[in-house]
Amino acid sequence: MQNLRVVLASRPQGPAAVENFRLESAPMPVPREGEALVRNLWLTLDPYMRGRMSDAKSYVAGVGLGEVMVGQTVGEVLESRDPGLHPGDKVVTSLGWQLHGVDRAAALERIEPGGVPLSYYLGVLGMPGYTAYFGLKDVGQPKPGETVVVSAASGAVGSIVGQLAKIWGCRVVGIAGGKAKCDYVVNELGFDACVDYKAGNLYRDLKAACPDGVDVNFENVAGIVLDTLLRLMNRNSRIVLCGLVSDYSATEPYGYKMIRSVLINRITLRGIIVFDWHARYGEALHALSGYLKEGRIRYRESVLDGLDQAPRGLVELLAGGNFGKQLVRLA
Amino acid sequence: MQNLRVVLASRPQGPAAVENFRLESAPMPVPREGEALVRNLWLTLDPYMRGRMSDAKSYVAGVGLGEVMVGQTVGEVLESRDPGLHPGDKVVTSLGWQLHGVDRAAALERIEPGGVPLSYYLGVLGMPGYTAYFGLKDVGQPKPGETVVVSAASGAVGSIVGQLAKIWGCRVVGIAGGKAKCDYVVNELGFDACVDYKAGNLYRDLKAACPDGVDVNFENVAGIVLDTLLRLMNRNSRIVLCGLVSDYSATEPYGYKMIRSVLINRITLRGIIVFDWHARYGEALHALSGYLKEGRIRYRESVLDGLDQAPRGLVELLAGGNFGKQLVRLA
Repeated sequence: MQNLRVVLASRPQGPAAVENFRLESAPMPVPREGEALVRNLWLTLDPYMRGRMSDAKSYVAGVGLGEVMVGQTVGEVLESRDPGLHPGDKVVTSLGWQLHGVDRAAALERIEPGGVPLSYYLGVLGMPGYTAYFGLKDVGQPKPGETVVVSAASGAVGSIVGQLAKIWGCRVVGIAGGKAKCDYVVNELGFDACVDYKAGNLYRDLKAACPDGVDVNFENVAGIVLDTLLRLMNRNSRIVLCGLVSDYSATEPYGYKMIRSVLINRITLRGIIVFDWHARYGEALHALSGYLKEGRIRYRESVLDGLDQAPRGLVELLAGGNFGKQLVRLA
Repeated sequence: MQNLRVVLASRPQGPAAVENFRLESAPMPVPREGEALVRNLWLTLDPYMRGRMSDAKSYVAGVGLGEVMVGQTVGEVLESRDPGLHPGDKVVTSLGWQLHGVDRAAALERIEPGGVPLSYYLGVLGMPGYTAYFGLKDVGQPKPGETVVVSAASGAVGSIVGQLAKIWGCRVVGIAGGKAKCDYVVNELGFDACVDYKAGNLYRDLKAACPDGVDVNFENVAGIVLDTLLRLMNRNSRIVLCGLVSDYSATEPYGYKMIRSVLINRITLRGIIVFDWHARYGEALHALSGYLKEGRIRYRESVLDGLDQAPRGLVELLAGGNFGKQLVRLA
């Protein structure tokens, strides 16, 4: 029996393309002492993956040419050579874009899905959910009545940020591309308003949607969106810099003109990575599970079928083409 | 007897010029109930004044055309119609660029100069000192052994920031323009190193001076200096954005290309204004007075004689021509 995997075939200049990837078969991996063999069931696609396709310095090194693309999966243990894992256990893994993989048991996080779909552990109950929870709570520090603006509002992180901000008593304004996404953000997710950045009047529309200015910006897109928001931020406001989607595919970095506002308005701008809260993941899981069960958080997935669809899925995700958490069903 | 004052005659496009000011005489002001008449002895010149010459939004409104230029002074009470002040009292004022002025007694801060020159209350024991103290301590949060980089290192704020960072156990690197200033920063102020931004190799020279990267940047200049420092900031580092001297006189705002580093390195970038620590000025005064008396802080002043010299003094200050705290002796 062979394994199937997607490797990085070439590095993109500018936007990623499906040609940057290659689907190939490989020998089935075999676990050694302390390791387990996992069959992947779900793969999550996320904007940060564009960064790993480059060899520029980032949090961690990029993916090497010919190497399996990185990514989280949910899978099932097929064979274990560690006493802590047993066949049939469900685990969250970092095995990447492949149908099977082997890792140390310590790197496989066993989950106890209590009536929740397995795929949720790659979204609202996984990294995107934790990112939203800690970034908003610890760095955004929203107070009841404040205005919170979230970009990529229909995305995996943004949709949860906005709903948490509503639960915590804020006025919430999303930014998304196109009327369909904006309607979804307001009508299904319950944001107070959503600005369509593709409509061409970002500053005017944001100003109208935020009559009291902006107290917290949870920023997933950056570039012109962040630069425009800097003109609307209130005194002592906070910007949670979580992503630079607009930058990942650009050949030239954006030149921010409104940094002056950081000084004038005593803004705190802070970059976040969810790993820094690793010791507190349990707190986020508990809170988010509770809100889900109470029906206070709505969560939408966008599912592609088959590993061979992953390259197209990532390319479209980076181009802003998806709704909700982008997943690939592998089995 | 007439008063003498400097008013804003026109708004600069680009760098400020002496022609933007006008020296004029005016009737001597007369205090009403609750007010006092002050004879100004010292006027301080500071980079923020460039901002007040514009009508763009800033912390506060700009100076109106024909109005007295804003600024702090130290003066002596000549006549008081408030029981809290008496002739001969020394006060820190916001009376601006004039020889005499009237203000509410509550707006005049009485000082008790204990063997310290009066002018120090406009520098190391005034706003610049407090800015350095709170910005570095509360926002920079330097830890012993960390590397602190200070731009405009020979200036009123920068020179104190660097010396405080040394007292608090850090490696301190200054940035200044020209060899004379850099020598002063290292040899007289005791910084570990100083990089001459005019030498044309800012990134390379900073990298050499900061072999372990940068943990705290106390930023007075911004523009290309800040953008370059963003390439050298360590993970979880802090940037105290205190001034934008490079921006004050620019006709086009600088376009920052390295904001990506804020995300990758989880940098906290925060704008500060000393007014926000008003309730804790006493703490800074106590600490700075102590360090001065112990000889642990060296402090240099640059003095011009006569109110008519103030416009030239500000223009040269903004062009980076001064050493230490720029003052104008008025009497």
